[in-house]
Amino acid sequence: MPNITGHTELVGLMAYPIRHTQSPTTHNLAYDKNGDDVIQLAFEVDNDSLKDAVQSIRALKMLGSNISMPNKTVVHKYLDEVDEAAKLCGAINTVVNMRDENGQVTGKLKGYNTDGMGYWQGLKEEGIDFKGMKMVLIGTGGAATAIAVRGALDGIAELEIFNIKDKFYSRGEEIVDLINKNTNCKATMNDLADHDLLKEKMHAADLFCDATGVGMHPLEDLSNIPDPSFFKKDLIVTDTVYAPRETVMMKQAKEAGCERVYNGMSMMLFQALIAIKLYTGKDTPVDYMKEKLGI
Amino acid sequence: MPNITGHTELVGLMAYPIRHTQSPTTHNLAYDKNGDDVIQLAFEVDNDSLKDAVQSIRALKMLGSNISMPNKTVVHKYLDEVDEAAKLCGAINTVVNMRDENGQVTGKLKGYNTDGMGYWQGLKEEGIDFKGMKMVLIGTGGAATAIAVRGALDGIAELEIFNIKDKFYSRGEEIVDLINKNTNCKATMNDLADHDLLKEKMHAADLFCDATGVGMHPLEDLSNIPDPSFFKKDLIVTDTVYAPRETVMMKQAKEAGCERVYNGMSMMLFQALIAIKLYTGKDTPVDYMKEKLGI
Repeated sequence: MPNITGHTELVGLMAYPIRHTQSPTTHNLAYDKNGDDVIQLAFEVDNDSLKDAVQSIRALKMLGSNISMPNKTVVHKYLDEVDEAAKLCGAINTVVNMRDENGQVTGKLKGYNTDGMGYWQGLKEEGIDFKGMKMVLIGTGGAATAIAVRGALDGIAELEIFNIKDKFYSRGEEIVDLINKNTNCKATMNDLADHDLLKEKMHAADLFCDATGVGMHPLEDLSNIPDPSFFKKDLIVTDTVYAPRETVMMKQAKEAGCERVYNGMSMMLFQALIAIKLYTGKDTPVDYMKEKLGI
Repeated sequence: MPNITGHTELVGLMAYPIRHTQSPTTHNLAYDKNGDDVIQLAFEVDNDSLKDAVQSIRALKMLGSNISMPNKTVVHKYLDEVDEAAKLCGAINTVVNMRDENGQVTGKLKGYNTDGMGYWQGLKEEGIDFKGMKMVLIGTGGAATAIAVRGALDGIAELEIFNIKDKFYSRGEEIVDLINKNTNCKATMNDLADHDLLKEKMHAADLFCDATGVGMHPLEDLSNIPDPSFFKKDLIVTDTVYAPRETVMMKQAKEAGCERVYNGMSMMLFQALIAIKLYTGKDTPVDYMKEKLGI
């Protein structure tokens, strides 16, 4: 951990709840390793305080801020610019305070989405070639959307998105339309309450991801999947949750005999390393980070 | 230095220039020693960005923020409440995010001034009983005003304030009026360009303080005092500057044979410890801090 002085610069993380996040550990390890006098701190920010919190990036000359739930799909309103890929998936997880030619922050804020890239980079690092795969994805929030859009762009053949019919279901239908119109991936929106359909699609899939946050505190005792019989042994099972390291869903998959079951740590790691590069311009050594974080 | 996690809370320091400040070292040493998961970070904030920066205390749920030049006499505009003593001296150096009965920050911000208390506490710690003393004080800014008002309230007999006839001179006249009306101290405002008068008053004084910041980067080669002949040997000489540890003015005083010459370190320490108590409720061990900071 670098010594904090008057020169130390700040990167934020704005979300609620957020106190149990792993993110500052990852970021601060990387800034230290890269020789940057920068730290990341987490701030409890919800939609009500988001506008002022984003303005604080400008007022305090922060290098930028990571954005997590419930702010990913809202924060674009307060930015000066949004990256094309982030626009497509309608969610932002990284706000960069853009620099001028002298390297000084300008107060002009640009939104990016490194979640999708982080998820798929994590699978690649496990030696998984996902091109042509059939995927079942639960969720229509920021992380789910980023994973869906980036996967469809990068070669997933069929994508079955499930969500309960809450206020976010129509958002899922929009994403499915967007994917079908703009990529070669065949996407379908499905009702998560239809367990027969979910089981059928999971048995037909190569890759499964729960991107809802169910399984994370305070929902750590819950799973979107009714029982282990929904998993077939050769399904690649992923969860975007990383605290706890093993969710109820992951336990169900292992009970069903699945061998390739991954939590959200590598997605978290790679989305962070991509964001760090946006803030500081530096590449962080991946092996060093994995060793230090025990991934 | 505590490990930074998602639980770590933030105290700010808002000023410009500020990168060369000693403050985060002092605060972070104290929070660590006291077992509080809190860090202080410095932010380059001037009058133009101050309103948004103060709002960020609320939006980011900071515990509060120290305030330094050029914001001390302006920040009251953006607060919910101002402590009576801070009102009297017209300058605030500490903004506290007030807590509710459960210890949660409320977003209601109250301004305090711990500069004056810090300065006089520092002299007391040196064994100096300043009651009844005659003082020459240069400056009419936030630190000078806080020192003047608190000294007058606490028993300084005569106070000769000097400043160049810039836009802040009338502020000095107001303070002199305020002191003469509200305390037993006899205060006078004088023109710093009148070197004969300055020399005469310094030779008649027991205590001298330069509270202008002259001697600090980028003015580190300058002194408000023309030459060492202005100092008599038994004058107690103080500077509010602590970086560098010895200003040109202090060197002049030592050259003149003065033995009791003090930089701003102890004022800085005690104003910090009083502010830290306002943020966290904790008393910090003074001897530990002096040893660690080499004061």
